[in-house]
Amino acid sequence: MTAAFSTLADFRKRLEALPVADAAAVLAATERNGQLTKPPGALGRLESLAIWYAGWRGTGRPSLEHPQVIVFAGNHGIAARGVSLFPVEVTVQMVANFQAGGAAINQLSKAFGATMTVQALDLDHPTQDFTHAPAMTEAEVVAALLAGWEAVDPAADLLVVGEMGIGNTTSAAAIACGLFGGAASDWAGRGTGLDDAGVSLKARVVAEGVALHAASLGDPLQVLRCLGGREIAAMAGAIARAHDLRIPVLLDGFICCAAAATLEMAVPGALDHAMAGHVSAEGAHRALLAKLGKAPLLDLGLRLGEGSGAALAIGVLKGAIACHSGMATFGEAGVSES
Amino acid sequence: MTAAFSTLADFRKRLEALPVADAAAVLAATERNGQLTKPPGALGRLESLAIWYAGWRGTGRPSLEHPQVIVFAGNHGIAARGVSLFPVEVTVQMVANFQAGGAAINQLSKAFGATMTVQALDLDHPTQDFTHAPAMTEAEVVAALLAGWEAVDPAADLLVVGEMGIGNTTSAAAIACGLFGGAASDWAGRGTGLDDAGVSLKARVVAEGVALHAASLGDPLQVLRCLGGREIAAMAGAIARAHDLRIPVLLDGFICCAAAATLEMAVPGALDHAMAGHVSAEGAHRALLAKLGKAPLLDLGLRLGEGSGAALAIGVLKGAIACHSGMATFGEAGVSES
Repeated sequence: MTAAFSTLADFRKRLEALPVADAAAVLAATERNGQLTKPPGALGRLESLAIWYAGWRGTGRPSLEHPQVIVFAGNHGIAARGVSLFPVEVTVQMVANFQAGGAAINQLSKAFGATMTVQALDLDHPTQDFTHAPAMTEAEVVAALLAGWEAVDPAADLLVVGEMGIGNTTSAAAIACGLFGGAASDWAGRGTGLDDAGVSLKARVVAEGVALHAASLGDPLQVLRCLGGREIAAMAGAIARAHDLRIPVLLDGFICCAAAATLEMAVPGALDHAMAGHVSAEGAHRALLAKLGKAPLLDLGLRLGEGSGAALAIGVLKGAIACHSGMATFGEAGVSES
Repeated sequence: MTAAFSTLADFRKRLEALPVADAAAVLAATERNGQLTKPPGALGRLESLAIWYAGWRGTGRPSLEHPQVIVFAGNHGIAARGVSLFPVEVTVQMVANFQAGGAAINQLSKAFGATMTVQALDLDHPTQDFTHAPAMTEAEVVAALLAGWEAVDPAADLLVVGEMGIGNTTSAAAIACGLFGGAASDWAGRGTGLDDAGVSLKARVVAEGVALHAASLGDPLQVLRCLGGREIAAMAGAIARAHDLRIPVLLDGFICCAAAATLEMAVPGALDHAMAGHVSAEGAHRALLAKLGKAPLLDLGLRLGEGSGAALAIGVLKGAIACHSGMATFGEAGVSES
């Protein structure tokens, strides 16, 4: 098999060639929605959600039967700066936990009928500490993007990507700061539970990284390379591939959205196939969603990662599609309209 | 079978005798939650939700397998005042739609594995127009409360109650105004889609009703009798019975919460077994939830009734319980703690 891309320039070309939603399916779904046995608009956001999903699936009456969840794991050189409460060994330990079915994302995937796999990306070779050097070489970031691209099942009808990587909220904060500017402290949050001193250290580390790579910040894919991580690049690659395949995506929390933001900033519209599954309790996630113009479906204070918030939102999307495609119309049911 | 109660005074005694959550199960669930493979608190509201559920089910590691959804339908004399956009015939037409499986609540119940039934309450005999007389006699309100009480399946492990009844947001607004005071216009919303003039009329009708029954407003169960409807009383009866059976409840929108509020105002603590499934777009629902001290799980702009918002929240609760009872502990998974 020839790789879908072999350089960042190639990858950008793939982003520029991504398809749009099917306008006829959007129209058909909108018409159907107006005929269902409910007052106009009474299902609120479920209505726009079903119509959005219909557009990407290319049918006015879609079903959601094969959601795919992929958890990518990577290790970060930046973790050596003490930016996490947990030791780096936890990344590989949690990969084993995912494989054994013991993590939160396993339970949520099962609860909502999703297949779930975990892909560990070269855990024995952490990225470089981005305060000293670019986190990845071009070959490394392209390999990670490709790992994500190739992990998407073309038969899936929804994608959720999650992550595990000790130190990766620091990497995500650096990406957000690199893409959107502002103070490092605007983007550095508590991660797995840092105290105020820990958050201050994290913000200093983010500021150092953004300063070191200042010359690269104009190119969002270089931001991903210099400040990202393998699992973050893989998430970006998978989200892009889903768009290529017209598979809708539910975005997870801060790290997932930092990965996704590199795509949207590189090529506006790259995230048109993606909805925000939830807003997490990680401080800057709400601001990041605002930058992306995405309103979250859920706001339940989760801050776990793994794809957990987006997986929970599969339930909401399933409900929306079940109503849209399963309800009777006024005509079918013999119910009077207002 | 002897009826559980035959007067409102008897019903109040049942409310005063309702059980509390199992403290040992709450403790066991709290301890388990602290050992699961995630940073402390990282599952946000899912954690407190699972512990709450565990307490009512009496086990530290509960499951949720038999949710029950009941839709009660009733007709309202007040509808003759023109407070709804839809004709009263729609109540019976929608009952047929529920029976045929064509409504939103049918799809949502199926999507989340709930059994769903509909119970029509004397649709040929609407309640009295509450601006002229009490909506129900004591015998009528007791019969409706009993219909709800007896409809709950003791084998269910979660209850959602929904409603259908043209005119019933007006009845719910009158109940809320009767229980909590304030201006009628604070509680009268757009229902199925009233314009400003329609909302003004509705507020006037609510004000008339509350004024007529001013002498009864000190007794929340009399508020239910004078201003409620059969389906609203049945919802209250079912919610009370669920508490009696230690079956947790997810509350739906404005009408469901007006029904529930009569219980809590009659006997504080009567709703300890209930969480707010969602906040609806019906104007005063957020204020009503605040009066009840309940934070909604979902905020997606639904305003359909039928139990739809609460049924959607079953997915969130299922996710919470799946994580709580299915995840590995740090010890089981060999994952290092911070």
